[in-house]
Amino acid sequence: MTSEAAWEPVRRVRTHEQVLEQIERKILDGSLRPGQKLPSERELVAALGVSRTSVREALRALEAMGIVEARTGSGPDAGSVITSQSTTALTNLLRLHIALAQISLADLVEIRVQLERNAARAAASTHTPEDLKRLAALIDAMRATGEEYREFNALDAEFHVGITRISGNALAADLMQALRGAVESEMAAAFARLSDWRSVADSLATEHEGILRAIEKGDGDRAADLVADHITRFYQDRILAT
Amino acid sequence: MTSEAAWEPVRRVRTHEQVLEQIERKILDGSLRPGQKLPSERELVAALGVSRTSVREALRALEAMGIVEARTGSGPDAGSVITSQSTTALTNLLRLHIALAQISLADLVEIRVQLERNAARAAASTHTPEDLKRLAALIDAMRATGEEYREFNALDAEFHVGITRISGNALAADLMQALRGAVESEMAAAFARLSDWRSVADSLATEHEGILRAIEKGDGDRAADLVADHITRFYQDRILAT
Repeated sequence: MTSEAAWEPVRRVRTHEQVLEQIERKILDGSLRPGQKLPSERELVAALGVSRTSVREALRALEAMGIVEARTGSGPDAGSVITSQSTTALTNLLRLHIALAQISLADLVEIRVQLERNAARAAASTHTPEDLKRLAALIDAMRATGEEYREFNALDAEFHVGITRISGNALAADLMQALRGAVESEMAAAFARLSDWRSVADSLATEHEGILRAIEKGDGDRAADLVADHITRFYQDRILAT
Repeated sequence: MTSEAAWEPVRRVRTHEQVLEQIERKILDGSLRPGQKLPSERELVAALGVSRTSVREALRALEAMGIVEARTGSGPDAGSVITSQSTTALTNLLRLHIALAQISLADLVEIRVQLERNAARAAASTHTPEDLKRLAALIDAMRATGEEYREFNALDAEFHVGITRISGNALAADLMQALRGAVESEMAAAFARLSDWRSVADSLATEHEGILRAIEKGDGDRAADLVADHITRFYQDRILAT
């Protein structure tokens, strides 16, 4: 295998890619952290010995990836700052990936159920009283959304991501937020199609209450089963069936 | 809530961002598919009524995200092509996200265990004879790697992603590949630190054989337990302990 793989086509690495790689390496080794400001375009040009165009293309790319935020203006706050919100970037890319790799909604729902089962089970033992209050407030807000299905959808997402957050696994919470965000528009479209929207919304809120109560009681297995049923049933009855 | 949220700070949307959004929208609605060529820079300039710089910045950003590949040259093959390999992009961004959000290796290992448990359980009923042959060949290759721990590491990753692939959930397989890729260098470093590297490698290969045998027998629960033990033990003994 080694001798067959000895020749590799030469890939021309363009200048802006090298700039990008240097910045990415500094993020990966921890020398660039969230909230930190990058050197100015002019400083980068001098430090790296490249053209302003290459620096600008690299910065635009990092912005588009959601790794760097451009703060416009001319004061001391202007410039490129390393983001602390890379979950947004993850959501955006996951959405594109799902479209490009033609991932089915069924596959996505299956992963959600796996992650949320585990999160609900863990949350039943890790929750604090404040966590429960916050989840209960979200359910109250869901009941008060009237015809605003988009607002309901946002609260619903917050509830599910909230459980994952309570479970204590930061990566699970970020993945959940990205997975939920990636199907945001499908969910809103499913809600919009419903003629009996408000009654469906109320029964979803009631299901959320059941999950919350199981978590509150510390019944992890029941919380896991309820959240799995809740997700699967909505998908089968409201998305597949329509 | 609605009235308080009625004012939002105005965000200036720059020209290259609008170009980017239009291309992304076409990917999301399926009118741009993997392997398809984008219009040339000149055509995009004309169609969108923007400067060449804006078009170029948008294309560079899409390339950096791993959504578009630049084929250099001047023949009919030159130009920007929508990638069919967006898993690479996902791996890269996940790696950056893990660094930026300071995700612990423990959280990542927990997610891997969750996904792989389910994949191994499913693979026990979905596998074909060819699938088993391919996994067995990977194990043989692992035994033949000698001192090449990087090659072993690559085969190990392929084995685990392979099981997820057999399970039939494409998103699970892509996420696994991205998660495994995101810790590629930590794994290689852990291998490199071992003084008894070859004997550890052989015992890992033997564990892989046990997993394969459980899948072959159709014993999903055992396959799930074995893969979970295998991952957790390596993490505790070889990464946490050193």
